[in-house]
Amino acid sequence: MSNGIGAHEVLIESPYHNKDISDLLPQEIESYLKMCCMRTADLIKDSRFKYIMVFRNYGSAAGASLEHPHTQLVALPMVPKNALEEIHGAQAYYNYRERCIYCDIIRQEIADKERIILENKYFISFCPFVSRFPFEIMIMPRQHSGYFYHISAEETAALAQILKDTLSKLKKVFVNLSYNYIIHSAPINGEVGVEYYHWHLEIMPKLTQVAGFEWGTGFYLDPTSPELAAQYLKAVKD
Amino acid sequence: MSNGIGAHEVLIESPYHNKDISDLLPQEIESYLKMCCMRTADLIKDSRFKYIMVFRNYGSAAGASLEHPHTQLVALPMVPKNALEEIHGAQAYYNYRERCIYCDIIRQEIADKERIILENKYFISFCPFVSRFPFEIMIMPRQHSGYFYHISAEETAALAQILKDTLSKLKKVFVNLSYNYIIHSAPINGEVGVEYYHWHLEIMPKLTQVAGFEWGTGFYLDPTSPELAAQYLKAVKD
Repeated sequence: MSNGIGAHEVLIESPYHNKDISDLLPQEIESYLKMCCMRTADLIKDSRFKYIMVFRNYGSAAGASLEHPHTQLVALPMVPKNALEEIHGAQAYYNYRERCIYCDIIRQEIADKERIILENKYFISFCPFVSRFPFEIMIMPRQHSGYFYHISAEETAALAQILKDTLSKLKKVFVNLSYNYIIHSAPINGEVGVEYYHWHLEIMPKLTQVAGFEWGTGFYLDPTSPELAAQYLKAVKD
Repeated sequence: MSNGIGAHEVLIESPYHNKDISDLLPQEIESYLKMCCMRTADLIKDSRFKYIMVFRNYGSAAGASLEHPHTQLVALPMVPKNALEEIHGAQAYYNYRERCIYCDIIRQEIADKERIILENKYFISFCPFVSRFPFEIMIMPRQHSGYFYHISAEETAALAQILKDTLSKLKKVFVNLSYNYIIHSAPINGEVGVEYYHWHLEIMPKLTQVAGFEWGTGFYLDPTSPELAAQYLKAVKD
């Protein structure tokens, strides 16, 4: 039940006004990711918080209201609607297959190959099979784990690298791109879902408008296949 | 269950390339609304269709992809997610109170007065108590009825007038406004929900961006209270 309690923090990724994440050094991105985890770990101590979301709006079309690049962290007294739907979906799949749906997605993407953009020891980045938007991207840890903030130092370095390289590719395909990314992590402080949930990062480039059809139905029209998007992104030279 | 069947029609409201609905004569809007009803009634004859949605994207920020003003009609082989959620909400309220939630909203809005923009014999237009967006507007029939396409000739004239006047006010407050409107009507051809559903029209002006917080949570941040929005709209001179 909601009770009017919450926290909202703005994380400044770097002192550089004109540098996006993709322009930072890997170790700078690592420090930023560590700070996201540290602030999450700190806020979890308040047992009234049931969900923590780390997200980033970059560019005016993505709703960024401060010009200096920044990330936001919100702590909420309930598990929000969209997170709950995702968790219920994962739970239904788990009950049916006795496996994590995200682990199965990773296996399928690696087997299919054609939607994968980048891979390293700990992460894969790919255009999801059922993308809602053109050039939608998921970055997913290979290791089954519900919580983003539990990542190890080695995983943090690997995430910094794949996030930098994925965003660099995206921004080379689309100049002046606005985008959002959201870290999807399991509910906290006694809320259910962590055992069958698998944290991940979703990048949503703002290339099309959400219009009447999407608002009315909750269904999404995507004019670009994820295979084609991945092909463009893979082809980008560093 | 979905089966790859559907229909998509584009309705041209008038021959005038530069006229929005608010610029048309009431009788022109009446003809347009009759056409929406006639096409719906015709498509319902195909029992594979379970939901028909009439919607309109006006302006590029609202995702309009054709420049000439137009309305779209889609017939779907399933009740879409967002419609289903609304219907389940109405059903839960009906089971709890034994009353239609929309009839109760109308009673409350009329009693409170401060969110109402316009009223006539058959319709009220108001900024809903829990608006998701600044200047969000609902036009609701006073008469309990699940289906938009069942409106009488007299109601059609009243809807044409309130739609014209409401949009005129909105467009005088915001020059070059982009907006969507969606007619929410009950499922068809044997799908449940019509007895406790109450059709209505929702206008969504595009004044802010949907950003990471909204995408991640499904919750909406609205910087303008519906009372303040209604006050601005009411104050507009014809």
